[in-house]
Amino acid sequence: MTAPLDPPKLGEPYLLTPGPLTTSYAVKEAMLRDWGSWDDDFRAMTRELRTRLLAMLGEGAGDFDCVPMQGSGTFAVEAMLASFIPRDGKALVLANGAYGKRSAQTMEYLGRDFVLVDKGDYLPPRGDEVAKILAEDPAITHVVAIHCETSSGILNPIEEISQATYAAGRKLLIDSMSAFGAIELKPSEIRYEALVSSANKCIEGVPGFGFVIARKAELEAAKGRSHSLSLDVHAQWANMAKTGQWRFTPPTHVVAAFLVALKAHEAEGGVAARGARYARNRDVMVAGMRELGFETLLNDRWLSPIIVTFFCPAHESFVFDRFYALMKDKGFITYPGKLTVVDSFRVGCIGQMDEHVMRKVVEAAAASLKEMGVDDARPPAIALEERAKLAA
Amino acid sequence: MTAPLDPPKLGEPYLLTPGPLTTSYAVKEAMLRDWGSWDDDFRAMTRELRTRLLAMLGEGAGDFDCVPMQGSGTFAVEAMLASFIPRDGKALVLANGAYGKRSAQTMEYLGRDFVLVDKGDYLPPRGDEVAKILAEDPAITHVVAIHCETSSGILNPIEEISQATYAAGRKLLIDSMSAFGAIELKPSEIRYEALVSSANKCIEGVPGFGFVIARKAELEAAKGRSHSLSLDVHAQWANMAKTGQWRFTPPTHVVAAFLVALKAHEAEGGVAARGARYARNRDVMVAGMRELGFETLLNDRWLSPIIVTFFCPAHESFVFDRFYALMKDKGFITYPGKLTVVDSFRVGCIGQMDEHVMRKVVEAAAASLKEMGVDDARPPAIALEERAKLAA
Repeated sequence: MTAPLDPPKLGEPYLLTPGPLTTSYAVKEAMLRDWGSWDDDFRAMTRELRTRLLAMLGEGAGDFDCVPMQGSGTFAVEAMLASFIPRDGKALVLANGAYGKRSAQTMEYLGRDFVLVDKGDYLPPRGDEVAKILAEDPAITHVVAIHCETSSGILNPIEEISQATYAAGRKLLIDSMSAFGAIELKPSEIRYEALVSSANKCIEGVPGFGFVIARKAELEAAKGRSHSLSLDVHAQWANMAKTGQWRFTPPTHVVAAFLVALKAHEAEGGVAARGARYARNRDVMVAGMRELGFETLLNDRWLSPIIVTFFCPAHESFVFDRFYALMKDKGFITYPGKLTVVDSFRVGCIGQMDEHVMRKVVEAAAASLKEMGVDDARPPAIALEERAKLAA
Repeated sequence: MTAPLDPPKLGEPYLLTPGPLTTSYAVKEAMLRDWGSWDDDFRAMTRELRTRLLAMLGEGAGDFDCVPMQGSGTFAVEAMLASFIPRDGKALVLANGAYGKRSAQTMEYLGRDFVLVDKGDYLPPRGDEVAKILAEDPAITHVVAIHCETSSGILNPIEEISQATYAAGRKLLIDSMSAFGAIELKPSEIRYEALVSSANKCIEGVPGFGFVIARKAELEAAKGRSHSLSLDVHAQWANMAKTGQWRFTPPTHVVAAFLVALKAHEAEGGVAARGARYARNRDVMVAGMRELGFETLLNDRWLSPIIVTFFCPAHESFVFDRFYALMKDKGFITYPGKLTVVDSFRVGCIGQMDEHVMRKVVEAAAASLKEMGVDDARPPAIALEERAKLAA
């Protein structure tokens, strides 16, 4: 079964990027009217948004509350770190790409203590190494983990990390930016204190705000901790509880669009169905690309249904900028890679796309290779050696 | 001459609020397509946005640059304060309403030194008192002023404040949130280091980002000062200079809408024409309301063309919540007052509205009073005593 799609109508290319992504036309149409942010109608929209997001947690959601936060996803991550890690706390930041490193950089700005475990471009942080570090450093109070690291597209082993964290009596904060809404994070199955995501990821809204979902006890405890008025999660939460309003002007149109996206998420069948569509997108696209000779950075065990990194072909006629332009001409915006060792590019699987669209992506890639005179899409040998470092 | 308007088409009420406000349908239609934030097309949009905003400064703009910042206007204010006031600096914050006090609260979060001059609900901070405070406290490095304080609707005497500031060898930072784009702030006439405003004010875009306009020398000097990764103006500026991109996901649709709003602003005749339309809106609306017996908080010398505070009628049948609901039924969203001494409400003059719309506002107010059984809209005597405190 394929979910009904509502594709772009104005001829713009599909965004094979991990947010902003291709949203339904209905989502965008919700932005055709203005809302007063103080008015009851808008307060009701904020209430519904929070309720619907919380419901996505499934069993155990009653211990949590949802706090939307203006700005990009990074703003919400910073708000989470500053609000839940006490000023005299210490974080273990697990990095295997740009987003883990960004959390570490945020801790530097905050002037709060942390240790960074940097696994390089993609190798996943594992439960046993987290356990070892926590055993050796009793000062660590919190572990910060990236759910899906879109730098490589790896789905990190969040269950292992959670188990190791709580076995050592510490607390887990999850950057689930690009995964929430497509990959389950049931508190009854995976323990954590807070997560963040944003409007323009797997819920398929447009960008303009993020949100923090946290245990109410942690929200209570966060009072007075934030370094920033704008990013103070406790203050935003307390004000919403009291007045039903955002403290400062919300992105009203983006919120209206998000409500339509939330309803579509539910109509599709919720987190499981959304994740299944994205997994199908990935499977169809990866199979097709492999037939063309492309190789993925990750072996199947680690491939997320969010975004996939491919090695650039070794062929001398392959130039990514040209490939990007040819793909764009055919209606698809791809994404450059972030690997430091070998050249790569990325193809996203999220947004208003299904397997039929993904087949067209593969056709466009085949045609683009042909136009470039690339008859062999296999990567250089060093790329495959790189991948061999990754355990199953 | 009245500017051509493009009113709401979906039956929603006019927003007589100081942002979010009523935007043109064309502005909202620009949000009907998705944009890749990494793509050249969007970089060109960001470039145009910055160039057009800078051009609004008029003569002297060449010494400045424009840095858009995700989030609400308050995020941009916090970013400005944290980036331009050194950690060992000291601010004089001039407050006569909620927004001045919010700047003081931000300084508290930042942990940077400041003195607050709180003039109460609306009395304006004057040049001579600024001069006196600066003379007495040589540690003060920066003055922070609110251009139009929308709590009362007062247009603060920014020229006086600027003159006093620079005469004492200090620097001025301006929160011009609700005024920029409708009231001139030419660096050749009023000296300052930086100002902030946001997308959903006098440029008539939809909410989702703000912007800082600052002297390039101040932007250079801001490196390493910010308390926040997300709100670091220097880092955002440096990254835009290097890559043409926002550091973190921009609100792409809101940016697309803003570009349409910027073009309409230019087509209308720029800052002067926009300000003239708003002043006409105010004049027509205030004259009509006064005919009904309503009294403004401020005498004409201090009335901004942005938003006007009216005293609530003394009549026992006047209840603001009922007035709000009746006005909303008639297609107009008003705004509650913020005065501490007497009850009040506010009517905004900004957005896609002209004098014809404002006449309808007055008609709706007259009808609402009638429905409430209020035959006399005059305020209590204490209100007029309050107003008498205000010098011409």
